[in-house]
Amino acid sequence: YPDRMTDTPTPADLLAPYIRAVPDFPLPGILFRDLTPLLAQPAAFAAALDWLASHCADADAVCGIEARGFILGAPLAQRLQLPFIPIRKAGKLPAATFSQTYDLEYGTDTVEIHADALQPGQRAVLVDDLLATGGTARAAADLILHTGAQLTALLCLIELPDLHGRDQLHPLPVHTLLSY
Amino acid sequence: YPDRMTDTPTPADLLAPYIRAVPDFPLPGILFRDLTPLLAQPAAFAAALDWLASHCADADAVCGIEARGFILGAPLAQRLQLPFIPIRKAGKLPAATFSQTYDLEYGTDTVEIHADALQPGQRAVLVDDLLATGGTARAAADLILHTGAQLTALLCLIELPDLHGRDQLHPLPVHTLLSY
Repeated sequence: YPDRMTDTPTPADLLAPYIRAVPDFPLPGILFRDLTPLLAQPAAFAAALDWLASHCADADAVCGIEARGFILGAPLAQRLQLPFIPIRKAGKLPAATFSQTYDLEYGTDTVEIHADALQPGQRAVLVDDLLATGGTARAAADLILHTGAQLTALLCLIELPDLHGRDQLHPLPVHTLLSY
Repeated sequence: YPDRMTDTPTPADLLAPYIRAVPDFPLPGILFRDLTPLLAQPAAFAAALDWLASHCADADAVCGIEARGFILGAPLAQRLQLPFIPIRKAGKLPAATFSQTYDLEYGTDTVEIHADALQPGQRAVLVDDLLATGGTARAAADLILHTGAQLTALLCLIELPDLHGRDQLHPLPVHTLLSY
């Protein structure tokens, strides 16, 4: 809450009203943070992209994690006129891929990147909507590093710090806008 | 192939070199049209968005179909400063939804839209990467119409005309850039 009328609102102040809290999704007792109101408000979406772009100073590629990371990463890449590289669920990318499997609460999941998507020496940022346990982000980061590219930062609009996802990414810089 | 040196290349001429044909994906005998080289070339991606934007003159919202439709629809919406509305696989959208189930070759699939994503009287365009049989696009179009909004066009970069997907959308205007 601003101290004085003259305080300049931060990007977090501006964007928080466009994140909807949906109770009991996907399971009872879980309060889901829904970005769709932000996506439906072009000026708010643009402000979110401004904030993401502010952490891409030395990047030369933007990687987005399927599927909500595509919604943020693709317009970010276009705004910066950088390549957009999709990191997808297993079996979705048609050419030769690198794969990384990671643990879920029950079972495992796998993400993939095209083996030729990044070149050694490129400097990528990784974008997703939400940092929770960090399992997907860690696997995606490992894929990027496996191409020989550098990874400069993970950027997420929302972080759930109680789940300690940030620890999984150490020592990668992790920038998040809103914490719940 | 240009007739004369002075012919202006069309958007299709410019973008076709960035579509990679991958044999035997997802199944033996299928030649998959892979957009990822286009996404990795910012000027080509921008030209594709220019072409999509040229068919959005009277739209006031952009709907994208999960997941590759997000990669095109979100930057298109931002370029036009219009709301971006995701149409997702079943169980992914957290708030109240409308659902539409459609037939696949074997079994069915379901797509959803938030029930409050569009208002009656809004004029939406629907964006996806590829028009094949038209099953997903028809279901997504039905979801948009169910909200009470109007649907002005389906826009896809690639069409496989032998699969007659366009017939499923009739009488909706369907604009595609490249046909294989």
